Amino acid sequence: MVEFEEWLNPRSLMILPIGAVEEHGPHLPLNTDSVQPEHISELLVEALKGKMDVLIAPPLRYGYCNTTAPFPGTISISVDSLKAIVKDILSEFSRQKIPNVLVLSGHAGSGHLAALRMAAGEVAKDTDMLMMVLSDYEIVYALDNVPDGDGHAGFMETSRVLAIRPDLVKPERPVAHPKMPQFMILSNPEEHFKEGMRGDTTNASAEAGQGYNDQIVEKLVELIEENFL
Amino acid sequence: MVEFEEWLNPRSLMILPIGAVEEHGPHLPLNTDSVQPEHISELLVEALKGKMDVLIAPPLRYGYCNTTAPFPGTISISVDSLKAIVKDILSEFSRQKIPNVLVLSGHAGSGHLAALRMAAGEVAKDTDMLMMVLSDYEIVYALDNVPDGDGHAGFMETSRVLAIRPDLVKPERPVAHPKMPQFMILSNPEEHFKEGMRGDTTNASAEAGQGYNDQIVEKLVELIEENFL
Amino acid sequence: MVEFEEWLNPRSLMILPIGAVEEHGPHLPLNTDSVQPEHISELLVEALKGKMDVLIAPPLRYGYCNTTAPFPGTISISVDSLKAIVKDILSEFSRQKIPNVLVLSGHAGSGHLAALRMAAGEVAKDTDMLMMVLSDYEIVYALDNVPDGDGHAGFMETSRVLAIRPDLVKPERPVAHPKMPQFMILSNPEEHFKEGMRGDTTNASAEAGQGYNDQIVEKLVELIEENFL
Amino acid sequence: MVEFEEWLNPRSLMILPIGAVEEHGPHLPLNTDSVQPEHISELLVEALKGKMDVLIAPPLRYGYCNTTAPFPGTISISVDSLKAIVKDILSEFSRQKIPNVLVLSGHAGSGHLAALRMAAGEVAKDTDMLMMVLSDYEIVYALDNVPDGDGHAGFMETSRVLAIRPDLVKPERPVAHPKMPQFMILSNPEEHFKEGMRGDTTNASAEAGQGYNDQIVEKLVELIEENFL
Amino acid sequence: MVEFEEWLNPRSLMILPIGAVEEHGPHLPLNTDSVQPEHISELLVEALKGKMDVLIAPPLRYGYCNTTAPFPGTISISVDSLKAIVKDILSEFSRQKIPNVLVLSGHAGSGHLAALRMAAGEVAKDTDMLMMVLSDYEIVYALDNVPDGDGHAGFMETSRVLAIRPDLVKPERPVAHPKMPQFMILSNPEEHFKEGMRGDTTNASAEAGQGYNDQIVEKLVELIEENFL
Amino acid sequence: MVEFEEWLNPRSLMILPIGAVEEHGPHLPLNTDSVQPEHISELLVEALKGKMDVLIAPPLRYGYCNTTAPFPGTISISVDSLKAIVKDILSEFSRQKIPNVLVLSGHAGSGHLAALRMAAGEVAKDTDMLMMVLSDYEIVYALDNVPDGDGHAGFMETSRVLAIRPDLVKPERPVAHPKMPQFMILSNPEEHFKEGMRGDTTNASAEAGQGYNDQIVEKLVELIEENFL
Repeated sequence: MVEFEEWLNPRSLMILPIGAVEEHGPHLPLNTDSVQPEHISELLVEALKGKMDVLIAPPLRYGYCNTTAPFPGTISISVDSLKAIVKDILSEFSRQKIPNVLVLSGHAGSGHLAALRMAAGEVAKDTDMLMMVLSDYEIVYALDNVPDGDGHAGFMETSRVLAIRPDLVKPERPVAHPKMPQFMILSNPEEHFKEGMRGDTTNASAEAGQGYNDQIVEKLVELIEENFL
Repeated sequence: MVEFEEWLNPRSLMILPIGAVEEHGPHLPLNTDSVQPEHISELLVEALKGKMDVLIAPPLRYGYCNTTAPFPGTISISVDSLKAIVKDILSEFSRQKIPNVLVLSGHAGSGHLAALRMAAGEVAKDTDMLMMVLSDYEIVYALDNVPDGDGHAGFMETSRVLAIRPDLVKPERPVAHPKMPQFMILSNPEEHFKEGMRGDTTNASAEAGQGYNDQIVEKLVELIEENFL
Repeated sequence: MVEFEEWLNPRSLMILPIGAVEEHGPHLPLNTDSVQPEHISELLVEALKGKMDVLIAPPLRYGYCNTTAPFPGTISISVDSLKAIVKDILSEFSRQKIPNVLVLSGHAGSGHLAALRMAAGEVAKDTDMLMMVLSDYEIVYALDNVPDGDGHAGFMETSRVLAIRPDLVKPERPVAHPKMPQFMILSNPEEHFKEGMRGDTTNASAEAGQGYNDQIVEKLVELIEENFL
Repeated sequence: MVEFEEWLNPRSLMILPIGAVEEHGPHLPLNTDSVQPEHISELLVEALKGKMDVLIAPPLRYGYCNTTAPFPGTISISVDSLKAIVKDILSEFSRQKIPNVLVLSGHAGSGHLAALRMAAGEVAKDTDMLMMVLSDYEIVYALDNVPDGDGHAGFMETSRVLAIRPDLVKPERPVAHPKMPQFMILSNPEEHFKEGMRGDTTNASAEAGQGYNDQIVEKLVELIEENFL
Repeated sequence: MVEFEEWLNPRSLMILPIGAVEEHGPHLPLNTDSVQPEHISELLVEALKGKMDVLIAPPLRYGYCNTTAPFPGTISISVDSLKAIVKDILSEFSRQKIPNVLVLSGHAGSGHLAALRMAAGEVAKDTDMLMMVLSDYEIVYALDNVPDGDGHAGFMETSRVLAIRPDLVKPERPVAHPKMPQFMILSNPEEHFKEGMRGDTTNASAEAGQGYNDQIVEKLVELIEENFL
Repeated sequence: MVEFEEWLNPRSLMILPIGAVEEHGPHLPLNTDSVQPEHISELLVEALKGKMDVLIAPPLRYGYCNTTAPFPGTISISVDSLKAIVKDILSEFSRQKIPNVLVLSGHAGSGHLAALRMAAGEVAKDTDMLMMVLSDYEIVYALDNVPDGDGHAGFMETSRVLAIRPDLVKPERPVAHPKMPQFMILSNPEEHFKEGMRGDTTNASAEAGQGYNDQIVEKLVELIEENFL
């Protein structure tokens, strides 16, 4: 508690990493979406040294998973629960006078991200705490070096986890290009998504993953400097 | 009530048009987001004749508007209310044994669309009614002929309303390229979005709008044939 | 948006018409409860010219229908959803500084009206916007010229729709005097209400309907002058 | 618990008396709306002897009070809380296999009664327990012998409490004929209702009250015989 | 209403007795948990004369009962409903400017007490009304003279009801020492709790009960003097 | 995902560690309540080898903190949010057919534990998954070797953290015996709890802490063998 008070100043930045417990093909672990933002958060502490005083809040490792829910291992919480807990945490950050907050989600489902942004949006009405909310995959998918048709548990994600926690990656290197019926609300998404992944992981590598991670950190530092300083 | 029973058969399609009451620059009306999907719904009735028996449900003309809420005239309902009413309506469609439903939203904000999809997703657990949920702008933005930087109340939207209800369009043809801070949760979005629109409407025309509307109908017919027949 | 600002002044009156999608016997359309208040709203614009600047908000065409829910075609939303959306809309009217509001419902079920009044009652705590909430049938049933035992889809309602949208009325002129068990909470109301209507429509006429509509407008003008001016 | 099991049979009737804590003029006690239905419940036990096995559940002595909330002493719970607790109690009655239930409310506000009926309506979907929900004032106001303009804490109510608990009635006999603005949602109802009562209590008497109570019991016995036996 | 205003002063104390409808072995009545705190409340009026002006609010006779729910006669409301209604009542006490409140529950289940304390805790944020919340059994179990293994419907509770309402106690004097699996969430608690009571009631007596009641009052007077004066 | 399926068998036990972010005196870290149950969980994996196949779910590191909320650093979520997320997680465990679950909380506040137990209780209605819910402090406080007046951040807790993560413990060894007003609902608990701890930590030691941890594991193994095997 003493340290918390000493840490607090106008250049303090609290990062709240948000993950998920979600099937990620036969090769990636269930906590894939937690491993990535927590690693990026640690890199940010380093990258922002001298610019901002960064603290990493205890991660929230549960999220809302839609299309992968029917697979073994996925533990999804509801959009309402996710929104409620994140709203509570952000309200408490504000009550504790934290000036700057980055909510960094490893999972990038649209309902999941909507929950995070609604939570922050409701807190924003009563605070002047600055809040940035994003998934690192919103940065990654905007990059130039994204393979065609790459997605969930695909080349980029496999490479990134190989760069961070190679011990958690199994030897399989699956390839799949599932076709989901566009705009349909599916009660059986897994039937259109049998492999539970999207893309070609044949050449995934820690090197490529390191590259993506570096690009994410670079972009995040840029965004943070633009908006919090 | 007699007609409803006579209409009901495996090829029945109910369209639920969803709009919003939202500022759309100095030139477009507050009901811009209702005018468009209701017009497209009527075109679909024609385009699907002989293939499906289409009925248009009473439109829901209120939606969730985030960045434009501070402007005069925007009447936004909450994500929770929107989700609740759409869930109720879809549950009732299912109770009435309607086999196919298209929820067509003129507004395309991410929280707004998430509400519609969550509502449908929850209903999907208890029904085998087929549901498609989309904004016509999700089709439009995927087209080839989108001007760079076009968006809310811009070239495409102005053209489309000119094609549908020219009497509602004012003579101004605004141009604006606002820069919103990326990923930030803003309590004052209007300060970064002073003109309340995005794009260059100088050359907007009913002709161009008619073209977009035709492309939307064509794509929707294709999606409907793929998924409902 | 420009027009909205120009319209706004202490004599501005916003009317929110509220309808329902509900079985109305073999002869009246499902949107009977929307057709009526929307027509009355338009008549009010005329009748109040020079006295108040009236704007009609996009109608809400879904309501809470209890005893008719089991009939084909009824699409009922819950009391909670109805209350939530109406509360949101009224809160937004207040946020936009609208001074006077009339919520005019075509449907007059007690749960439905309770939802509208609870919504308005909660908004009233935080605003000085003046709000009147009623069903036109609360006026009609207080008139002298109500046939005995007339009710849902009966003589008055048939006559009124004949006066407004004769094209929507079928040739049947049903007669029924159902006996509902008083005060009982019924899980099968339709068994006590087989014809889905109440009254004798044999002599229903556009002329009689026009008379009722005129009486409603007259009474509403009186109420508006008493309470908003 | 033994007695409960012994009591339970197809002719068992559980009465749930519902009251309120509400201002009732200068002469009647705050628990006026509890005193009356609890007394009627006891009379019903007698009146139904040999016909039904009546048990009186612990009364719920809190309700939703709208126009009297600003007066000293009114303790009003919300419509949502009232609905929730009554729904729970009725669900439990159903779980315990009670076949017949009468919910008898002394308070007759429209939001209050809507809450009770919504609660029962939701329970009705999952049970075949028979439920009747009413206020004794719905019976009283339909009688022939109601003085003009009589209402809250007026002639009938004063007389009834004089017949039941004369010790709780103060010597004042107020007269008031307040005019509430019709259909308006009021944030300050007490300004239009200064005396907190309606009617002329000058000639209120225990005798008259006894008469009303007898008429209520007679009508209730009739309703119970029609619907539960 | 007049009396309420006259009663109100800085030494006013409102007691809200809270009970339950719960199985209490073969010998005690379903309203055991209401009888006790209502009796203690009356004793407190006497004991505090000259010190505080005590008023007893209408009791709430429904609570949340967990392990006894499967037994005949238990009517349990949910934690959420209990919390909602108690929060409403306490908020109204605060709105009416009552300075001191004692919530006295006869039922002492942990979920039940948590509901009461959460309700009070939420009200505490917006008021300076002083609130004490407890079950009389929290006092009793801290006494020296508690028989080993005594609990629900056991020696102390039987004795206390014998002292208060001997007419409600049946002649059985059960003995049971059930073993509930510690910390397990049970879907069938009654299988581990067949007798529905805990302890040895053989020597229960009104005298012993009177002693417990006196000790409770003594402790409550002490707590009230410490905290409210 | 493959591993999850391979792990699943009738002897599978999922542990869900639950922590808090809470002030713990000047010497213990904010994540004190997470460190302890996560460590115990790991010890249990070892201790149960050959008996049960234990998997540790991603911990939930946020809880409901009442009396310490006003101190710097406490980030408390609401009881409702906590209950909602834990209910979701347990429902998903059940959907994934996990047979045995231990919810192990480091924080032992009564509202916090009530939330966990209500969540599990609601899930229990729809599953035959076995669930045990407790705080390790419920075990610790029942031990013989508890110093008088020891509590939050006191001798036992300091010793336990010294045994687990000595690097997180500061050199201060505070002593405090705060007197909280019994049963009062406090809006300013910190005024009665100035040191933010309770007990005498002077002689706290890793050795003593190791002893407590061993006793907890021993008791948990016993409980697990009794209830899950």
